[in-house]
Amino acid sequence: MTLQLWEHCSVATMQADGPLASQPYGWIEDAALVVQGATVHWVGTRAALPDTLRAQCVQQHDAGGALITPGLIDCHTHLVYGGDRAHEFELRLNGASYEDIARQGGGIASTVRATRAATSAELLAQSEKRLLRLMQEGVTTVEIKSGYGLELSQEAKCLEVARRLGHTQAVAVRTTFLGAHALPPEFAGQSDAYIDAVLRMLVQLYAQGLVDAVDAFCERIAFSPAQTQRVFEAARALGLPVKLHAEQLSDSGGAALAASFGALSCDHLEWLSPDGAQAMAQAGTVAVLLPGAYYFLRETKLPPIDLLRNKGVPIAISTDSNPGSSPCTSLLLMLNMACTLFRLTPEEALAGVTRNAARALGLGDRGVLAPGMRADFALWDVQRPAQLSYALGANPCIQTIFNGEPR
Amino acid sequence: MTLQLWEHCSVATMQADGPLASQPYGWIEDAALVVQGATVHWVGTRAALPDTLRAQCVQQHDAGGALITPGLIDCHTHLVYGGDRAHEFELRLNGASYEDIARQGGGIASTVRATRAATSAELLAQSEKRLLRLMQEGVTTVEIKSGYGLELSQEAKCLEVARRLGHTQAVAVRTTFLGAHALPPEFAGQSDAYIDAVLRMLVQLYAQGLVDAVDAFCERIAFSPAQTQRVFEAARALGLPVKLHAEQLSDSGGAALAASFGALSCDHLEWLSPDGAQAMAQAGTVAVLLPGAYYFLRETKLPPIDLLRNKGVPIAISTDSNPGSSPCTSLLLMLNMACTLFRLTPEEALAGVTRNAARALGLGDRGVLAPGMRADFALWDVQRPAQLSYALGANPCIQTIFNGEPR
Ligand SMILES: [Zn+2]
Ligand SMILES: [Zn+2]
Repeated sequence: MTLQLWEHCSVATMQADGPLASQPYGWIEDAALVVQGATVHWVGTRAALPDTLRAQCVQQHDAGGALITPGLIDCHTHLVYGGDRAHEFELRLNGASYEDIARQGGGIASTVRATRAATSAELLAQSEKRLLRLMQEGVTTVEIKSGYGLELSQEAKCLEVARRLGHTQAVAVRTTFLGAHALPPEFAGQSDAYIDAVLRMLVQLYAQGLVDAVDAFCERIAFSPAQTQRVFEAARALGLPVKLHAEQLSDSGGAALAASFGALSCDHLEWLSPDGAQAMAQAGTVAVLLPGAYYFLRETKLPPIDLLRNKGVPIAISTDSNPGSSPCTSLLLMLNMACTLFRLTPEEALAGVTRNAARALGLGDRGVLAPGMRADFALWDVQRPAQLSYALGANPCIQTIFNGEPR
Repeated sequence: MTLQLWEHCSVATMQADGPLASQPYGWIEDAALVVQGATVHWVGTRAALPDTLRAQCVQQHDAGGALITPGLIDCHTHLVYGGDRAHEFELRLNGASYEDIARQGGGIASTVRATRAATSAELLAQSEKRLLRLMQEGVTTVEIKSGYGLELSQEAKCLEVARRLGHTQAVAVRTTFLGAHALPPEFAGQSDAYIDAVLRMLVQLYAQGLVDAVDAFCERIAFSPAQTQRVFEAARALGLPVKLHAEQLSDSGGAALAASFGALSCDHLEWLSPDGAQAMAQAGTVAVLLPGAYYFLRETKLPPIDLLRNKGVPIAISTDSNPGSSPCTSLLLMLNMACTLFRLTPEEALAGVTRNAARALGLGDRGVLAPGMRADFALWDVQRPAQLSYALGANPCIQTIFNGEPR
């Protein structure tokens, strides 16, 4: 397989182990990066690059002084949906209450209606625009959840669109089945019966190869811990990893429950308790923070960052891209909000969309630039990584390499 | 002069007078827009377009269902500066205090140093990148303030760069002299003497054709009302309009002072008093709100929106693009923040970057699409204008027409 060399760059490897771990960002100044096919072969200082290896490199790229980071990973999105909720936003800002809007069929119910009404082609077209926005900012892996179909064929339609996006675009898509997202209208008042249906859907969607992980929304306004547990047991029976929307609006003990199933991640976590954090730390569960939803819902309860730091819970950051509470397609903006609103350091924020985001998806082959890892990386027109979190609305991404290929 | 027709579009004319004024956004569904040279010749429903006028149109453009709005106007920026303050951001988030950073020469002093050290070409190159980001989102007019040179040749250098940007890019640039922005180190402890220097600079910069308006920063940490008044008197003597950074951190009565000089705008205004708002209303002074700085500085005191509405003060929205308190180059993001944080309606927000932003610059020929106005407009891939404020990080701008020409 041909070797390619990238030089005249600095590299934020994001390595957390080995000799670079003591450098913030696993930083290499005046670096060289050698890629073999779709894999990183060698990374280090340009001075340390062996002449023999340089001589083997068929292509030599001058990065022109760019910063190179691992390709960004957006580990929590609801990117595939129909319709748009801008009109509700406008009604609310003109004085309508949430109740008024619910009475008019608004809220998540309107997205479920619009998603069910959309053809696959329509869903693909509007979701692709959102995906392309993420990709323009150096995103190379994105998780996409179902959860607006809420019945078998509709959930299948959405997950198929997600898979298709991964095939038609130069980006890796990981699918998550979130049947337990909201109660569909046809199950009003029968949430246990709906969970029965979710378990049946899971088996069939899994058999169709559409499910990489299983998620649920455990909250007073959604599903109970007991119902969540049933979903997790079904996932475990299929050997599928789980994740959870937990402790967003109240502490319902979801994080500890998820940790007891070895969850990849618990997401939101504004109301996470010390016991929940402890359970996550022991299980190696990643905390996925979603500053876009915090901002958009004008929440005031911050997730317990110091608790997460003290317990050693890895922190990831994501857009939560969705039509209702985070209509966001900029992961760079989330870096800024993670720093500005949550007081993460720029290094923590960048780790949150690379190394720890990979972990939140159970992917050990990316999120860090080191030999043997996937050659997914982005070139940035910045001098130092903190500029990626600092700027609001800039997109300094010059180029993205996906699977060893420029895209 | 040749006539051009745009059709298959809806148009948010933003007209506040005439028959369309009763329509939110001055809205025309299934519209036609006829441009003659650099000027709007006719706008209305497609059905109402006279056949004779259609026949005269040499070029007919199919807008493909796009929404057309006036070109956006960013009426308050500090876009021309040297250096970058991401490093301070990182230090603060790693626990350094503002004092620590000031002791290391940080804050605005570091921007003044970097700006003074930069060549014109360097300033132009880095400012142009920021300007292009704004332009990608449909901005056709941008105001640029000086205020990081703080001595004659340096202020001239910055204003010349601003003028040059207006000549090299397809965008209208309005320059504002903000000598009274901060006290330069060589005048430490001698703020009145520095104001003397500011008045001398103003006369010379004006004579060089570099000044369209005059601004000052009236605040406890900057200049007093008495010093501000001296600057305004000098501006008045030259026939130049004034604006003011007022009531951002405290109520120092700056808004009323500015209004007494018929100021085009008062900007920030978190601490604006009812008397100040009353004075602004009587003088026709625009309130320019800067949600990026509010967000970035994690302020909690909201500008008094209802007071502004009740007094009939026109509201504009801007990026305040600057290296320290709003490192922002997305006017669309400001629309979202104006709605989310300040609870403006999407219609108020859009008026704030079109009709009222034009007024904040004293420009009667733009910000509205109506016969006789400049043919500066943007085409958007959205169905309704509220989507422009709703999305976070999307850029649905398809094309921008500047001065009647696609750019
Ligand atoms: Zn979510
Ligand atoms: Zn300003």
